[in-house]
Amino acid sequence: MSKKYVYLFEEGNSNMRQLLGGKGANLAEMTLIGLPVPAGFTITTEACNEYLTAGHKFPDGVLEQVFTALERLELDSGKSFGKKNNPLLVSVRSGAAVSMPGMMDTILNLGLNDESVQGLASLTGDSRFAYDCYRRFIQMFSDVVLGVEHARFDEVMERYKRKLALIFDYEIPSSELQSIIEEYKEIVEQEKGFAFPQDVREQLTMAIQAVFDSWNNQRAIVYRRLNKIDDELGTAVNVQCMAFGNMGLDCGTGVAFTRNPSTGERELYGEFLVNAQGEDVVAGIRTPTPIDRLKEELPGVFQQFLDTCQKLETHYRDMQDIEFTVEKGKLYMLQTRSGKRTARASVRIAVEMVNEGLITVEEALLRVDAEQINQLLHRQIDQSVKLDAIAKGLPASPGAACGKVLFDADLAEKMGGAGEKVVLVRSETTPDDIHGIIYAQGVLTARGGMTSHAAVVARGMGKPCVCGCEAIKIDSGNRQFIVNGIVVKEGDVITIDGASGNVMLGEVPMIEPTLSDEFALLLQWANQIKKLAIRANADTPQDAARAREFGAEGIGLCRTEHMFMAAERLPIVQQMILAENLEDREEALSQLLPFQRDDFYGILKAMAPHPVTIRLLDPPLHEFLPHPETLLLEIAEMKHQQIKGKVLLEKEELLKKVHSLSEANPMLGHRGCRLGLTYPEIYCMQARAIFEAMVQLQKEGIDCFTEVEIPLVMDIAELSLLKAEIMGVYEQVKKENNCELDFTVGTMLELPRACIMADEIAREAEFFSFGTNDLTQTTFGFSRDDAEGKFIPIYLEKKIIKDNPFAVLDRKGVGSLMRLAVEKARSVKKDILMGICGEHGGEPSSIEFCHIVGLDYVSCSPYRIPVARLAAAQASLLNN
Amino acid sequence: MSKKYVYLFEEGNSNMRQLLGGKGANLAEMTLIGLPVPAGFTITTEACNEYLTAGHKFPDGVLEQVFTALERLELDSGKSFGKKNNPLLVSVRSGAAVSMPGMMDTILNLGLNDESVQGLASLTGDSRFAYDCYRRFIQMFSDVVLGVEHARFDEVMERYKRKLALIFDYEIPSSELQSIIEEYKEIVEQEKGFAFPQDVREQLTMAIQAVFDSWNNQRAIVYRRLNKIDDELGTAVNVQCMAFGNMGLDCGTGVAFTRNPSTGERELYGEFLVNAQGEDVVAGIRTPTPIDRLKEELPGVFQQFLDTCQKLETHYRDMQDIEFTVEKGKLYMLQTRSGKRTARASVRIAVEMVNEGLITVEEALLRVDAEQINQLLHRQIDQSVKLDAIAKGLPASPGAACGKVLFDADLAEKMGGAGEKVVLVRSETTPDDIHGIIYAQGVLTARGGMTSHAAVVARGMGKPCVCGCEAIKIDSGNRQFIVNGIVVKEGDVITIDGASGNVMLGEVPMIEPTLSDEFALLLQWANQIKKLAIRANADTPQDAARAREFGAEGIGLCRTEHMFMAAERLPIVQQMILAENLEDREEALSQLLPFQRDDFYGILKAMAPHPVTIRLLDPPLHEFLPHPETLLLEIAEMKHQQIKGKVLLEKEELLKKVHSLSEANPMLGHRGCRLGLTYPEIYCMQARAIFEAMVQLQKEGIDCFTEVEIPLVMDIAELSLLKAEIMGVYEQVKKENNCELDFTVGTMLELPRACIMADEIAREAEFFSFGTNDLTQTTFGFSRDDAEGKFIPIYLEKKIIKDNPFAVLDRKGVGSLMRLAVEKARSVKKDILMGICGEHGGEPSSIEFCHIVGLDYVSCSPYRIPVARLAAAQASLLNN
Repeated sequence: MSKKYVYLFEEGNSNMRQLLGGKGANLAEMTLIGLPVPAGFTITTEACNEYLTAGHKFPDGVLEQVFTALERLELDSGKSFGKKNNPLLVSVRSGAAVSMPGMMDTILNLGLNDESVQGLASLTGDSRFAYDCYRRFIQMFSDVVLGVEHARFDEVMERYKRKLALIFDYEIPSSELQSIIEEYKEIVEQEKGFAFPQDVREQLTMAIQAVFDSWNNQRAIVYRRLNKIDDELGTAVNVQCMAFGNMGLDCGTGVAFTRNPSTGERELYGEFLVNAQGEDVVAGIRTPTPIDRLKEELPGVFQQFLDTCQKLETHYRDMQDIEFTVEKGKLYMLQTRSGKRTARASVRIAVEMVNEGLITVEEALLRVDAEQINQLLHRQIDQSVKLDAIAKGLPASPGAACGKVLFDADLAEKMGGAGEKVVLVRSETTPDDIHGIIYAQGVLTARGGMTSHAAVVARGMGKPCVCGCEAIKIDSGNRQFIVNGIVVKEGDVITIDGASGNVMLGEVPMIEPTLSDEFALLLQWANQIKKLAIRANADTPQDAARAREFGAEGIGLCRTEHMFMAAERLPIVQQMILAENLEDREEALSQLLPFQRDDFYGILKAMAPHPVTIRLLDPPLHEFLPHPETLLLEIAEMKHQQIKGKVLLEKEELLKKVHSLSEANPMLGHRGCRLGLTYPEIYCMQARAIFEAMVQLQKEGIDCFTEVEIPLVMDIAELSLLKAEIMGVYEQVKKENNCELDFTVGTMLELPRACIMADEIAREAEFFSFGTNDLTQTTFGFSRDDAEGKFIPIYLEKKIIKDNPFAVLDRKGVGSLMRLAVEKARSVKKDILMGICGEHGGEPSSIEFCHIVGLDYVSCSPYRIPVARLAAAQASLLNN
Repeated sequence: MSKKYVYLFEEGNSNMRQLLGGKGANLAEMTLIGLPVPAGFTITTEACNEYLTAGHKFPDGVLEQVFTALERLELDSGKSFGKKNNPLLVSVRSGAAVSMPGMMDTILNLGLNDESVQGLASLTGDSRFAYDCYRRFIQMFSDVVLGVEHARFDEVMERYKRKLALIFDYEIPSSELQSIIEEYKEIVEQEKGFAFPQDVREQLTMAIQAVFDSWNNQRAIVYRRLNKIDDELGTAVNVQCMAFGNMGLDCGTGVAFTRNPSTGERELYGEFLVNAQGEDVVAGIRTPTPIDRLKEELPGVFQQFLDTCQKLETHYRDMQDIEFTVEKGKLYMLQTRSGKRTARASVRIAVEMVNEGLITVEEALLRVDAEQINQLLHRQIDQSVKLDAIAKGLPASPGAACGKVLFDADLAEKMGGAGEKVVLVRSETTPDDIHGIIYAQGVLTARGGMTSHAAVVARGMGKPCVCGCEAIKIDSGNRQFIVNGIVVKEGDVITIDGASGNVMLGEVPMIEPTLSDEFALLLQWANQIKKLAIRANADTPQDAARAREFGAEGIGLCRTEHMFMAAERLPIVQQMILAENLEDREEALSQLLPFQRDDFYGILKAMAPHPVTIRLLDPPLHEFLPHPETLLLEIAEMKHQQIKGKVLLEKEELLKKVHSLSEANPMLGHRGCRLGLTYPEIYCMQARAIFEAMVQLQKEGIDCFTEVEIPLVMDIAELSLLKAEIMGVYEQVKKENNCELDFTVGTMLELPRACIMADEIAREAEFFSFGTNDLTQTTFGFSRDDAEGKFIPIYLEKKIIKDNPFAVLDRKGVGSLMRLAVEKARSVKKDILMGICGEHGGEPSSIEFCHIVGLDYVSCSPYRIPVARLAAAQASLLNN
């Protein structure tokens, strides 16, 4: 006996989603709980997969089982498939395990042919209705199954309407419809070389085949890629007796949500169309009316529908998205599924359902998509408005910004400071642009990836940013940029969407973030469930304060390099870098000390008494110097203008230094602890600044705790040497101030070798923090700056990778190293504090992995803390 | 009872090297086998280590044991330490487990004071001798133990000789020596504030302390670093009764090797100095005579010495380096150890000793330092000549070259082609310089690391190269370079040493490589023992032929990018890169196809029937384009000269393209299989070239086997897609030519993720080759180009790393990943071919590791194949 490929609705239930698809499982479930569902059956996803694998051939037994089930439908309904007397018509619909609305194919009214159409006419006493059904069926079947263009049939309809001087399709009389049907059939014969199939079993076989094939149509593939749906799932096919919403004014069709999918309010929300089939609603041919009209027009049906909605919501314990048909005053349920909803609605529904006793707190936490709630924390483009983007770059820092285009930071500071809304547009930003970024609404750059200067700075400030938008050609000379032929001049208004990377002309409607009471409550619940602590990546007291508002339990990464880039400090930093000897360097460092001390004082105070991880200087020094090409051109210009002497010499010296510091691969170069080991005086200054800030706070009676973090370690020896330097500074500060301070010294794990050597390194380290940005770069051998613009898009397209590994932590590769490191570290120091501070720390799937491997905390940008709290709670619920 | 810290010579043997040091263990061994060794004892290395760890304090019991042993010497010799009657004098010498000649301290004649000197005088009846001993002792002790400068005493001696009008020290009469001794003692008192110690036990204690301390003197530390000797070994101290070679003409001292240490010839080789102590020989104060003189002067002693040498060589079964003294016609053996020898001698001695039946083949293989024999394969600087280097760069490609300095490749080609010897000197080389490099003797660059273009190309050609010699400032305008104030003009002759990185003015004497019969035999033996196959990294038929001469068993890495850089092809390659669409790119590729086919034809033919691994294009495309700074300046210049129109536009277009291709971190950028996936047509062209070359060879009846290698894979999906492309090309070629070809498709493991995923990737790969250059870069997060110039020297100095990980494979980090990958790969495909093709493939310790983890082959530059063969045999012998 062959495998069971076909299930009658009464044989299934909602747990069989994987096998029957979402629609089939829910139709079965509705049948099970006694709702009025037209009879039918489901052909399994397994049949689909075997069909596709076998090169579009049905597995043995499928068709036999289909026709056996069909006989059962005939028996139960007393109708006959393809017969003149009381003909059985069916719909054939796709239905995957995961909802992919509108992506695959549907055929209605199948079972009509020249003979059965007459039966339908006599049965309903409405020949116009019958021929209209037949006409629709031929058109739909020819389009979907035979691949004949829809437009060819529409032309015929239009011609008839013109000829008859009619406006609406339904005004065409029955006799004319019969001529139209003849023309339709001719079109098919012309296009395909064979007659429109009159054998209804052939019709059904071909329709099932077409639905299976539609799993791999272009739009379905793209949809799956966008929504990260597995290509191997396959679709089920649902064959169901037709219910007719188009048999008169006591008929109709509608869709409804049991709650408002936009706001979450508890109210029936939907639309109804009198005397119509479902396709009319979906296709937007006629405008449906609000569902309330049903109450007026068919009050009995409306009440039955209300009760059914209530029953479904209570049964499924979630807001439902329902399709239904009314045939001659009788209600038929065609589909139910959990309804899609906005982030706002999602939060409200989840919380209210807990209050209603419908679901538990744990369920509520799992109902809300953690990634989606990020929307609630940024000003965003109104998604209901259709937008024309003129270009698309990388979505580098979320939120939307609108303002006048400006090309230089000074002007941005001036105009922005004067209250104008401006967007700073640059090829790429440098530390020199910081003051402009502060006063801009957002930043748009033509070059640079997700970790470019602009991106990092903007994310730190919570400011929208679109990076690496290579389509825009900046012409600074003429103070304009050109994109696909459109010229945007300085002062023109644009809008950028840092969540999508889109750039639009003019001002686009936006939605302000809303932090509802329900949201706050949900996050409180999350805190009770989650195991991971949530920290923030924050470099300023402002960031730290914002992070605490969002619920941060400490700072997991305070980068000190951004402090070096502030306008008034950069010259001192440059002086330090250009110093030819230790003495000059220490002199410059002593000027930086008070700045750094103030920085740390402010951050520690804002976060007290929570722990603050301060990472010592990490980037290569040339990042603080001018770009060599700029210098080169300046020197060439000076020479041409015959400028000589000291000015030229100094420029040439500077260029020489820039060249000598420039590196082939700065990511793998002279940075991190390698700087600290080459110039211990830099780290010593930073350690002193930290300890002196702590002394000050101690005097003020403020508790604080610092984790001094050494970056880019690959061997215990690096950490030992630098820890000794830091402890030396501490001993001095302790003696000078006669006090004890509370701190630990640890390191980042951001190189494969550090992970492999984590047991050795743990002997010296008091904490570990995974720097998964760098760890991903080295494990994959992907430079993020280069990869995201150049080949990650190709890799995603070719399905070499499922996700951008810089967005979603790669569990197999990077994750293996992390797991190894955790095991090794804990084998030496059972309780060593371990966290993550790469950008993955704010991404739900990555957070789940951190929970699974047993980290103590995740750290992410302040704006993602709510996402992280929810994701951490979900991870805890899903992995017990 | 305290630990045993002191061993009489009769208590030890040669196996106690670790505890007694090499010298102590051998003195014990010689005592054991009945050779005439002056009595003595050894203080253990353990005592030294405990002394140093305790902060320069003797462990309990050491001194007690020393003086107990001393009493035993007194008893046995009938002499008394520090006494007037028959005084006992001793030498105090260092002796570590590993020989560190001349690095640590020695004190002779200890036990002399104002009293015992008289005893010595009366005992020997030679007061001049006695006072001379005392004088020497004071000077040596003061220098070594008390830290009084040697020169202060020499001044006194010189003054006396001038006063007495004498030439030689030994002409100074006894009475004057006594005055000198008084002056010496005054110097000590002046300098130190205390009198020269008269207490001989104090003398001995201080001397032992000084020897222990000398373990950490600057030159010893540097020596250990250079020779990779563990700092924790510590030194032993040997205290031994003095034998006097300076008591008359029947006395003397000498050193001898049992075979010629330079050529390996079986002949006694050494020097003897009549009436002298050992220090005279070592210090080079007097010129010794060849050892044959001993035969004439003291024939009895000579015969005894010959017999002893024979006995020692037979006993130790190795060539010995012997120190001895003759005291009044009696022979005393002071030291024996395995003698240092040149590579040439090492090979000859090992092979001859096998023939003599003294050692086994296995022992012979272990006797020769694999790294050292590299010397025999390159023309090299004569090490016996003292050199003054004017600068030092990176030793990028071994061998020495001498020629006229030229600054441009065209001229180098012209003059080199005309038979002139030239050295090409460039800031850094580019593909445009290849033709110049071909005709130059060697290459010197001011910038770039061990993997820079110049280095890679030069190594491939077996041409000497010094890279990254930052001290030289090239002034192309004036056709000269300046280094530390020295101006070297075009046409001046320099010599570069690619083995040391040294640059010298003028022509320096060189030694031609010698490939002796013994060497060939040794390598034959190696082949019988080794498990690893040895392949070559070779990119040209010439390289392939050379590799076979050296015994290559295949090519493990044939890089195709160098083929792209040849002068006549580069314009086509650039055209291919600049192509705006697939059609133009394919047009350019079709022009490259015949070149590539010829390349592969030649290489496969030269290596047939051995396997050839051909790596498809790997480097980022911008490496084939001009440098952006060069273009930038050219454009600026054109603008200044008001040049406009097409020429300028083209340049600007080119710059735009160069900028768009330029990457933040090209090592981690758009290269390797990422190129192949973006532009499959490039790899398809290369695959076609390979297959067509194989077809041609097949037609000629030549067997060949190709391994098509995909670089930089991190996931099986990359390999699957590209393998499918290659197999597609194969199917075409097969059909076109109606033939079957013998090849496999595999990949490099050069990224941490590839190692972690090796089991998955192995399902698709037919072979694996570890690319340990890149794997080291990513595992450490070290960009080789940046690290070797900037921070690896600091890391070595601070002992953070023991070896440069790009030279010696890092077993703990990189090695762990390799081990993991081997296990994973073999768990899926038991017999999958696995090798290594990074530069580690030619380094002995790394080769040993490859043997241990069970690789099938190592691949290295043709010139290192003999090294690799020997190292592989040694690995096999040492790891059974």
